[in-house]
Amino acid sequence: MPFVQIDITRDGVTKDEKQALITGVTQLLREVLNKDPKLTHVIIREVETDNWGLGGEQVTELRKQKNKY
Amino acid sequence: MPFVQIDITRDGVTKDEKQALITGVTQLLREVLNKDPKLTHVIIREVETDNWGLGGEQVTELRKQKNKY
Amino acid sequence: MPFVQIDITRDGVTKDEKQALITGVTQLLREVLNKDPKLTHVIIREVETDNWGLGGEQVTELRKQKNKY
Amino acid sequence: MPFVQIDITRDGVTKDEKQALITGVTQLLREVLNKDPKLTHVIIREVETDNWGLGGEQVTELRKQKNKY
Amino acid sequence: MPFVQIDITRDGVTKDEKQALITGVTQLLREVLNKDPKLTHVIIREVETDNWGLGGEQVTELRKQKNKY
Amino acid sequence: MPFVQIDITRDGVTKDEKQALITGVTQLLREVLNKDPKLTHVIIREVETDNWGLGGEQVTELRKQKNKY
Repeated sequence: MPFVQIDITRDGVTKDEKQALITGVTQLLREVLNKDPKLTHVIIREVETDNWGLGGEQVTELRKQKNKY
Repeated sequence: MPFVQIDITRDGVTKDEKQALITGVTQLLREVLNKDPKLTHVIIREVETDNWGLGGEQVTELRKQKNKY
Repeated sequence: MPFVQIDITRDGVTKDEKQALITGVTQLLREVLNKDPKLTHVIIREVETDNWGLGGEQVTELRKQKNKY
Repeated sequence: MPFVQIDITRDGVTKDEKQALITGVTQLLREVLNKDPKLTHVIIREVETDNWGLGGEQVTELRKQKNKY
Repeated sequence: MPFVQIDITRDGVTKDEKQALITGVTQLLREVLNKDPKLTHVIIREVETDNWGLGGEQVTELRKQKNKY
Repeated sequence: MPFVQIDITRDGVTKDEKQALITGVTQLLREVLNKDPKLTHVIIREVETDNWGLGGEQVTELRKQKNKY
């Protein structure tokens, strides 16, 4: 019965990458907690980099300074 | 003081359908818990079918197989 | 495929009241959007009144002033 | 290690206003709880006014009646 | 910069199982999206079975009927 | 109409500290976006350190290694 919400920055994540996240999380929950995949929901939320802050700064700005965010 | 978040797939839900959800949830909370509608907030979040997984698969793909999702 | 999260203050809501919320929301989603109840999840989160603020004040304090919250 | 989610209506909030929210929340968490800004994440979610209900009505409609919402 | 929220029913999940979920999700995000683990946060929320509904029924009741939930 | 959710680790945060967070966030939203405090809700969610992961490790364990988390 798990419900998983994944927030990431909106960065052109492809459909296949999303599928890989969904498959991976669903398998993980089966392996660790024996959860039935039929009852596992995963939602991916893509957030604009202007709308995500870390260390008091927008990710949009952080990325101008360093490549790692 | 309730706050309700409804996640659904993005499927062309109309403005009137959204209004019906908002009205229905707000009335339910008044009937069951005597909550003042003026303090009840409802948010509807529409999620792309590529971004929603069930049973380890994207809803986009599930819908190609069956009509029920 | 809806997923509904209901945040309410922790106030001794009974098991039957929770059941009534779950039933009501699930029916509403079937009526308005034709969603299969088997795919509708509802989570109720109960929040301590010290942890909920409205108008800049804790609900704990608001309730000392008025009965309506 | 705080994680803050701010839901607001989608109203043309500017990049600078978003930056001001991010800075303000991050500073507040340092002042009140001594949280390291490097570990504080803030996400701003902008919600269409059709998708936000208060008092059983869509914000879109409430705004036609009064200016305060 | 991912932020992952995992909602599961409260079922005596052990500290080691929680660690396994956290490790697994963090690795998955590195593998699929090349996300720096230092920026990946994972929160596990445990929900009472009275507070989780599926198919219009509380998980508490569903479990009396079948073992699979 | 903002709704703010603050996730922090459960660390004996006092009622006064919670009040300070609620007041601060509510004022910030008035200053930056001119939001009416009467419509601003703030929820603080306290998460067990076993249930919060960063960099692939539980905060419980991170704190044994360093003081900064």
